[in-house]
Amino acid sequence: MPHACDLLLTNATVLTLDRDFTIHRASGVAITGSSITAVGPEALTYSATESIDCGGRVVMPGLVNAHTHVPMTLLRGLADDLRLDVWLMGYMMPVEREFVSPDFVGLGTRLGCAEMIRSGITCFADMYYFEEAVATATAEAGMRALCGQTVLRFPSPDAISFEDSLALARDFVQRWRNHDLIVPAPAPHAPYTCTSEILRECAELAAEYDVPLHTHLAETTFEVEESRRQHGMPVIPYVKKQGLFGAKVLAAHCVHVDEGEIRGLQQAGAGVAHNPTSNLKLGAGIAPVARMLELGVTVGIGTDGAASNNDLDMFEEMRLAALLAKGHGGDPTAVPAREAVLMATRMGAAALHLDHLTGSLEPGKRADLIVLDLAPLHNVPAFERDRNSLYAQIVYASKSTDVLDVMCNGRWLMRDRRLLTLDEAGLRDAAREYGRRIDAFLASREESVLQKLVAIGGAVEQESFEVQVKARIASAEQALSVVESEALTIIRSSRYQQFDTYWSFSDPGQGRLRYREDEFLDKDGKVTGARARLTLTGGTRKESFGDVLLFHSRYLAPATHSARFYREYFQPAAEHVVEKERRRWLIAYRGAEFHVHLDRLIAPARDGWFLEIKSRIWSRRDALDKSAIITELLGLFGTRPDDTLPDGYVEFAAGDSPLRLP
Amino acid sequence: MPHACDLLLTNATVLTLDRDFTIHRASGVAITGSSITAVGPEALTYSATESIDCGGRVVMPGLVNAHTHVPMTLLRGLADDLRLDVWLMGYMMPVEREFVSPDFVGLGTRLGCAEMIRSGITCFADMYYFEEAVATATAEAGMRALCGQTVLRFPSPDAISFEDSLALARDFVQRWRNHDLIVPAPAPHAPYTCTSEILRECAELAAEYDVPLHTHLAETTFEVEESRRQHGMPVIPYVKKQGLFGAKVLAAHCVHVDEGEIRGLQQAGAGVAHNPTSNLKLGAGIAPVARMLELGVTVGIGTDGAASNNDLDMFEEMRLAALLAKGHGGDPTAVPAREAVLMATRMGAAALHLDHLTGSLEPGKRADLIVLDLAPLHNVPAFERDRNSLYAQIVYASKSTDVLDVMCNGRWLMRDRRLLTLDEAGLRDAAREYGRRIDAFLASREESVLQKLVAIGGAVEQESFEVQVKARIASAEQALSVVESEALTIIRSSRYQQFDTYWSFSDPGQGRLRYREDEFLDKDGKVTGARARLTLTGGTRKESFGDVLLFHSRYLAPATHSARFYREYFQPAAEHVVEKERRRWLIAYRGAEFHVHLDRLIAPARDGWFLEIKSRIWSRRDALDKSAIITELLGLFGTRPDDTLPDGYVEFAAGDSPLRLP
Repeated sequence: MPHACDLLLTNATVLTLDRDFTIHRASGVAITGSSITAVGPEALTYSATESIDCGGRVVMPGLVNAHTHVPMTLLRGLADDLRLDVWLMGYMMPVEREFVSPDFVGLGTRLGCAEMIRSGITCFADMYYFEEAVATATAEAGMRALCGQTVLRFPSPDAISFEDSLALARDFVQRWRNHDLIVPAPAPHAPYTCTSEILRECAELAAEYDVPLHTHLAETTFEVEESRRQHGMPVIPYVKKQGLFGAKVLAAHCVHVDEGEIRGLQQAGAGVAHNPTSNLKLGAGIAPVARMLELGVTVGIGTDGAASNNDLDMFEEMRLAALLAKGHGGDPTAVPAREAVLMATRMGAAALHLDHLTGSLEPGKRADLIVLDLAPLHNVPAFERDRNSLYAQIVYASKSTDVLDVMCNGRWLMRDRRLLTLDEAGLRDAAREYGRRIDAFLASREESVLQKLVAIGGAVEQESFEVQVKARIASAEQALSVVESEALTIIRSSRYQQFDTYWSFSDPGQGRLRYREDEFLDKDGKVTGARARLTLTGGTRKESFGDVLLFHSRYLAPATHSARFYREYFQPAAEHVVEKERRRWLIAYRGAEFHVHLDRLIAPARDGWFLEIKSRIWSRRDALDKSAIITELLGLFGTRPDDTLPDGYVEFAAGDSPLRLP
Repeated sequence: MPHACDLLLTNATVLTLDRDFTIHRASGVAITGSSITAVGPEALTYSATESIDCGGRVVMPGLVNAHTHVPMTLLRGLADDLRLDVWLMGYMMPVEREFVSPDFVGLGTRLGCAEMIRSGITCFADMYYFEEAVATATAEAGMRALCGQTVLRFPSPDAISFEDSLALARDFVQRWRNHDLIVPAPAPHAPYTCTSEILRECAELAAEYDVPLHTHLAETTFEVEESRRQHGMPVIPYVKKQGLFGAKVLAAHCVHVDEGEIRGLQQAGAGVAHNPTSNLKLGAGIAPVARMLELGVTVGIGTDGAASNNDLDMFEEMRLAALLAKGHGGDPTAVPAREAVLMATRMGAAALHLDHLTGSLEPGKRADLIVLDLAPLHNVPAFERDRNSLYAQIVYASKSTDVLDVMCNGRWLMRDRRLLTLDEAGLRDAAREYGRRIDAFLASREESVLQKLVAIGGAVEQESFEVQVKARIASAEQALSVVESEALTIIRSSRYQQFDTYWSFSDPGQGRLRYREDEFLDKDGKVTGARARLTLTGGTRKESFGDVLLFHSRYLAPATHSARFYREYFQPAAEHVVEKERRRWLIAYRGAEFHVHLDRLIAPARDGWFLEIKSRIWSRRDALDKSAIITELLGLFGTRPDDTLPDGYVEFAAGDSPLRLP
């Protein structure tokens, strides 16, 4: 009597991806419950409750997406072609702070699952906030996932402290660790966003419950340089020292790892998730995948989040992984098609530490499989000379839209390109609604430079009014003699080298943003310290009292990012640079305090010295009084009326060295 | 009275790709005959014979595939993951020699056009043989193309000499230069496959008829190094010196060009076709596209032929061009999405010198356009904050399968993903039939190592039988004294350093392939010359006469490729290396000629000297006679029976330094 099974797939080209890379032509797969019972000729001997003719198409393991942040599917295309810091701190984090909730996460997961099922993925490794909602939505969609609850040293959308975050992770792992589809994991975000304590506790938690640990390692050169600077070693040895490899680690990226670190990953039995599109798109670099594989590291392929990809298409990633390794090393034999398919299936599952469940079509493994159509024109003709040509067809010519059917854990999730566990139209509508809300949030934020400045946080708003005047002065000696004369009282003095970058916008009403770097100088002109500040000033002069001008400054903040960050974030219409040497005194004169600056312009170069006198004012009365005193002071310094500059240095110098941006 | 037009597309998001990158939302395009009459709000004022509601979808210029070999679509997936020379000389060229005909070219073109139309391409630049057949099939399919008739210094499938090839190109240009869809061009294949005379004549031909010239430039480092070696300059200055830039050049690849060469391309007004997938897949490298664009070079994007891609999908190429530039330079702001779309449309058309006809939606240009659906889940949600987000959706998330409708020259080629000018099922069947024939050709060729050797040509088969013996000998002096004694007559003598690589196959019946490099030495041991030879010997010893063995050698050929080439082409199961110093004499003894070799093994190192005596034999009688004489000679040299080696050096040395291949 023949063996019995629930479902028999017949008339298929079965790509098993087993150890021998067995391919069964005109053959089948027998499935009982959630598992594969038999594969190949043996399967065809089974008697089945239901039998499906695959029409000669390819049946292969469902693809494993080794790294993603699935709820971020809702942020797809929100901000592109930006540098990592601008993208992350300027857009992703502000929007996440505002919108990420269990509802957002659940919807984003369902949307991402729908897209992943359509592209032949049956299993993925996730890392996000409210991971409980990810797990719930994924299980409902019928997909398999390694779900990582993020732990960070900063407050996050789901935890106000890392202690809360750790408790959340522990709770999540405890409650989900016996689920049929979901494998929970703690996910310390990255060494540079976690303390060593977080890394250690996460590793212990993962080891305690024998679940994997999901993290980001060595994504950028910046991260590696910081690790060397702070810990005196690159990333892999550092996390090893924190005991991270006491857990079964899945490490995303590993773009910047040296030979020793690659060997370290191999010895630790860590899985690596290679994310070729994301690494290229964010300019992180190209991971040494061919070398990792050569040294026996388990490497899977991931899409990363849709916010940095911008889709969840493992066919694109497989192709890119195969192509990039070749172009990177100049070796067209690197990562051949079969190896790319392996990375996207069995080796990917091993990177997730789930290869006992999925990644190949072998008796005893779960029935996670897809039916792929090789008949579309972009895969015609086909050659059989090389027994690996089938893998080449899949990697170099197949598209995700060639996936017809998807089964996970013995359950059909898609038949003939129709989703069976998710409502596509409903998801589209709900996602569009989120898109509109996020658009509105960003639009209101971006109505003004000030709003954009507030949005990235890290500074307090401060409004001030001041009166000021600038004038050429005959000689520095003359100015010094006045300052040191008994007419004035010096309260403080200092000396700087000042580098100012002025950004203006096409709407002059937006004001002007100044990024100022001060280098403090000692008496001999040696640099003793530095700081950077950002000031937003009203673009229009408010009023003038003779030569004295009234200025309205709306915002003053320590500049926590680089000039380059702000330039890319604010996208000014024009940029001007002014560099000067400044001696600065706070003086008292006639009962009021004034700042007196003696400046020499270095860039654009201008002969002679300039005097600037300014004072903060509190009322119109105050402004009038102080203007009068400043005029008096000007006389004391011996400047004549036509020595005064009607505008700031930037207008004065503008004709000389404007750096216009596109 | 409103203006009239033939066709009005309404309710569309019109991406014009004009100089201002104008996007008209909820707008239209008016078309009359083959041309665009109005775009945007103005178009909506037209009265139309036919009006089509685009349902809010995107209408944008048809994509321009800036470089391909469209008939090679029939060779898609024939050979993958191989080095350029093995791929080209081992597979492409032998198959092309056998199969390329006007019929092959016509079918391949129709198949390629079908795939290109499906992926939204309306215009492409081709280069192949029998270009007349390409032009004919393309015009019938209704696509626009720059058709380049290949000129080479070697015999090609369509011309036995380059003079014939040039005449063919001239004739082709003359007859097609006024066609509505086809722009003919001479296509000197590449500087390293053309003489300077070919380059000059092609440039003159193109200038004479004011048509573009299509060529490959600076694809590999090898090409650049060869150019420097042979011409004392890199590729761009060399072709400039040959007057190539007297023509409107479209140069494919330009992967390895330095700063000066990039400026040279810009000054020459040459268009560059960037082929990211092909360059990665063949390990050529990554072209400095961001720098080219910065310096004002006109850069289009191409798929290259399907044999090195393996599909003709411009959405994949656009995405990869945008991603690769970022990852290559570590700058995520390089080649933003809008620039990638520009390269795939208007700038691509300009690279083909056809931007007066196509590449943007502007009144007066031909109606080459596509309708793209952004509703599929992989493009949900969408954000409108950034006015470039539409370009990002197209580049980073859209798929070629999202193209619904394609129009070229005012004629619909696809509606709702149904091809209107080509018979898809018929093409599939015909292409599969070619696939089967090519498979059979390669299978028969690959039945034996000998057939594979014959297939790559360049050598004559030669069969020989010889008797030979090898023995240890006490000292070199002793052997020399015998050779120089009066008992023998020396006819010739020489001295070599020999490097032998032996390849064996899993089927021992295939014999053994020996790649031998001889370095000729003078009396002082200085190298005076070198040669390489390839010998296929029967794997089994035929017979023995005492210690003397009968060998059957089936093939002897000058080795025109590197050892690496043959290793990758033949894929042996194992490899062994033997290096020796050899003194060689041709001597006469007892009326017959013998080769006497006095060898010292260097790798694997073996003490002492070895004597080899051999002679070619013509019959069994001859074999018996010469075996007897060789046995006598062995006595003369004083070797004892247990001094003889039962096998060749490779078996003798095998235990020591085998290099096993995977």
